Amino acid sequence: MLKLYYAPGTCALATHIALEEAGAPYEAVRVDFGSQAQRSLEYLAINPKGRVPALVTERGTLTETPSLLLFVAQHFPAAELAPLADPFALAQVQEFNSYLCSTVHVAHAHGRRGTRWADDAAAIEAMKRKVPATMMECAELIERKFLKGPWVMGEQYTVCDPYLFTIGSWLEGDGVDTTKLSGILEHRRRMLARAAVQKAVSAEGTHVP
Amino acid sequence: MLKLYYAPGTCALATHIALEEAGAPYEAVRVDFGSQAQRSLEYLAINPKGRVPALVTERGTLTETPSLLLFVAQHFPAAELAPLADPFALAQVQEFNSYLCSTVHVAHAHGRRGTRWADDAAAIEAMKRKVPATMMECAELIERKFLKGPWVMGEQYTVCDPYLFTIGSWLEGDGVDTTKLSGILEHRRRMLARAAVQKAVSAEGTHVP
Repeated sequence: MLKLYYAPGTCALATHIALEEAGAPYEAVRVDFGSQAQRSLEYLAINPKGRVPALVTERGTLTETPSLLLFVAQHFPAAELAPLADPFALAQVQEFNSYLCSTVHVAHAHGRRGTRWADDAAAIEAMKRKVPATMMECAELIERKFLKGPWVMGEQYTVCDPYLFTIGSWLEGDGVDTTKLSGILEHRRRMLARAAVQKAVSAEGTHVP
Repeated sequence: MLKLYYAPGTCALATHIALEEAGAPYEAVRVDFGSQAQRSLEYLAINPKGRVPALVTERGTLTETPSLLLFVAQHFPAAELAPLADPFALAQVQEFNSYLCSTVHVAHAHGRRGTRWADDAAAIEAMKRKVPATMMECAELIERKFLKGPWVMGEQYTVCDPYLFTIGSWLEGDGVDTTKLSGILEHRRRMLARAAVQKAVSAEGTHVP
């Protein structure tokens, strides 16, 4: 059985939702960030990056959300969570998810984990100050160029949707005025109406604005 | 015909090499970063992110290196640039490439493009100071946990290899002492012996340490 290591408020929620959407047999294991359990020797043996998510499969452990989402879509093809037979469309899915992991998630992380990139307290404060602007810029680009509606890729619900939902739920906490982001807010409402989303959100105890 | 927009010294080299490895018909178009051509209206119409690479296909434009690499592997399956029939192994490829784009490339970018994340000059200097340490940490993790040898995924050469080669060629410029990184240096030498790598490197005029 698959085992998903997660912590509430992290991007692990995207994979958690995807597993629910797929009807996958899995166990969700909470990693206690409060006690820094992600840095324990026990957890580092599972994921040497000391982060979540990590998905333990019968063939080994996978990390990185875009990889986990592709794996869930391919491992449970009946759930039709990605356009697996169409290389261009599948590349569009990976393009969107890569943008979320390499640009949007990174912009967000500068508000909370600035010590990754600088040791100086004033620099870390300077990073925090820019987060509302960088996150707004990302959200606007997503609305203008990528979110086709009703789902990210258009008519087909894909693994892009739980990932956008997850990172999109951080916007208010990042100081972004989401009243201007009607596309993302509508997408969020649509997501919250899905049973799989409700189940994962409730299991994690995640706050969605 | 595919059209790859690139600039020398950027991660576009990974896709450039992959296209050569695939024997793909393509045209490489240089974007002049010196004159800020990536921010011109003409280029923003191609890629609204204002970055390279961008790959123009007959069905539209794709961005983000992990997506482009997957597309090349899937579009030219005879080149066997990814374990396409094995969801777990393919997820491992995406895991590695996601790590490069979301963590390693981002660590590197703090030395050159700190204005993405802070407006304060002192903060940008503080970011630069940390780059040698963060890049070394990434390189060590790659050697310890991911680079199986002789190629990233083991016996099969995949799209992970041009991507590691590309980002690995930035290490010296980032202040990392690569004499301690024998795995990455051997991988670099192995890559430089391939005709496809030589052709892409020479076409771009890229300096590889």
